[in-house]
Amino acid sequence: MADSKFIERYRTLFVSQLEAKSKKTDPENLYEPITYMLELGGKRLRPILTLMTAEVFGGSADEAMDAALAVEMFHNFSLVHDDIMDDAPLRRGKTTVHEKWDLNTGILSGDAMLILAYQFFESYPPETFKELTTLFSKTALEVCEGQQYDIDFETREDVTIPEYIKMIEYKTSVLVAAAMKMGATVAKASNKEADAVYEFGRNLGIAFQLQDDYLDAFGNPNTFGKQVGGDIIENKKTFLYLSSMEKGSKEQQESLLHLYSIKPKNPNAKVQAVKSIFQECGAVEATKTEIKSFTHRAFDTLDMMKISKTNKKVLRQFGENLMQRTV
Amino acid sequence: MADSKFIERYRTLFVSQLEAKSKKTDPENLYEPITYMLELGGKRLRPILTLMTAEVFGGSADEAMDAALAVEMFHNFSLVHDDIMDDAPLRRGKTTVHEKWDLNTGILSGDAMLILAYQFFESYPPETFKELTTLFSKTALEVCEGQQYDIDFETREDVTIPEYIKMIEYKTSVLVAAAMKMGATVAKASNKEADAVYEFGRNLGIAFQLQDDYLDAFGNPNTFGKQVGGDIIENKKTFLYLSSMEKGSKEQQESLLHLYSIKPKNPNAKVQAVKSIFQECGAVEATKTEIKSFTHRAFDTLDMMKISKTNKKVLRQFGENLMQRTV
Repeated sequence: MADSKFIERYRTLFVSQLEAKSKKTDPENLYEPITYMLELGGKRLRPILTLMTAEVFGGSADEAMDAALAVEMFHNFSLVHDDIMDDAPLRRGKTTVHEKWDLNTGILSGDAMLILAYQFFESYPPETFKELTTLFSKTALEVCEGQQYDIDFETREDVTIPEYIKMIEYKTSVLVAAAMKMGATVAKASNKEADAVYEFGRNLGIAFQLQDDYLDAFGNPNTFGKQVGGDIIENKKTFLYLSSMEKGSKEQQESLLHLYSIKPKNPNAKVQAVKSIFQECGAVEATKTEIKSFTHRAFDTLDMMKISKTNKKVLRQFGENLMQRTV
Repeated sequence: MADSKFIERYRTLFVSQLEAKSKKTDPENLYEPITYMLELGGKRLRPILTLMTAEVFGGSADEAMDAALAVEMFHNFSLVHDDIMDDAPLRRGKTTVHEKWDLNTGILSGDAMLILAYQFFESYPPETFKELTTLFSKTALEVCEGQQYDIDFETREDVTIPEYIKMIEYKTSVLVAAAMKMGATVAKASNKEADAVYEFGRNLGIAFQLQDDYLDAFGNPNTFGKQVGGDIIENKKTFLYLSSMEKGSKEQQESLLHLYSIKPKNPNAKVQAVKSIFQECGAVEATKTEIKSFTHRAFDTLDMMKISKTNKKVLRQFGENLMQRTV
């Protein structure tokens, strides 16, 4: 389904500013990979949420732009370093930075992107600057912690579903939540409303990541961007896997354990076998239920917020739009 | 030569706070390498400069402590990532983070250290917070740019001495300069005085790095900490090399070019041959002269500053102390 017109408006506005405001060129070998990464595209969901939330709380997209740029720059920093750690060859259908250049370029350009993200806040007055920067640092550190949990889980056999939810909360959803709260902060929303929109984003973010897990196995290779089956190939203990280990028969559990202990050169048979188990034991249904549950929690928070019906509809429409990727 | 008592006092104060204020533990695999790195020791020169400069401008070391912690945390972040890029096995005589753990741990713990550095500024009120954070980001980005120039120079044959000085200015001396300016900022020094102390630190930092180049080849392996001859082994075009290529006979230049095109398994003979050329062609003397020149520039700036004679003596003594490593 195509995005609504209002989302497309924010995206166009954002991308034009992203190009205008990330024009450093020297040294070339540091900044060229950054430009490459930013121009790879992507859905720009996080910065769009910053702009949208600012307007929902009576601010303007223009004044929220630098916060949105910080969020997108940080997100791309984390992708560059994650791609190294995951040894990923492709990102958004194109060669990853460390593959196109080399390891050192990936590390150093990533570092520079993290600093550039902080610099975008400098256009705000001191009070706002401090509020945004403090939230940003807290969020960035949680993203690192989430990435560490993710790495740790690869070699742990006793990961629980609550632990997994905490991991994806840190790795993904706190940035979605912070992106929205920054929009609220720039628009001078009350602390209560800013916290509520953070909660909305946090739950929506968890739903979004669970959906990403689902799509990583069952998505359309032409539209998903990443390598479909990547999580399975890497033996990642996603919600689908953990749920299967809870729901599956002893036989299914043993099969999964075996399949998650190997990394065959041609992974197609493994991916298919794993997907069959996911489906047969009910894990696919359980994942879809969990996605709905977190989406509804987000919408419940939204319902209780003191903003106009029209603005509630804007955020709700964005959420619904995001979650329809599953279908 | 042992450090003066007043330097030792700052160091003791700083190290006690460093231990008290960097106690995050979960996830263990993220924070243990950070604690390891911070506890490796090192001279703590940069944070000492922050504390000292704060007192020179009438502030207290206590109120400058968080800025000093940020500076040291950042410095250690850059060491962890640089060690990966340089493939260095040892740091301060101990195993480097990526060697003791692995590549991913080095990348991610380094990222977390960069964010933790920013967080130390949060104890300052918004105006000061913004001033410190803005200087910090500018400096951090320059350090990345310096590291990139350093990498670029490895494969370039036409590096000039001014380009080399700019590289070490960015890679090393801007952080020394910023460390001092932060002390001045916390102590509410005037912009003019803060800029002057930045200049002092910048020139002293360049002198310090040139001295480090010298010690990397000619230092005492028992006290230098790093692997003596490391730059030569890695074919790094330091001031010694660039100066030799300018001053050397055609024969010496050709020998050097050859020696800098190989990486023998046992590097001892190569290191000795290169050092002989450095000495014979006058590059060692030229390096010492350049070290003195930048040190004097620093002291000239100091002389013109509007601070008490006693305080000038404090900064001068620190500078002289630092530069006596050469002997």
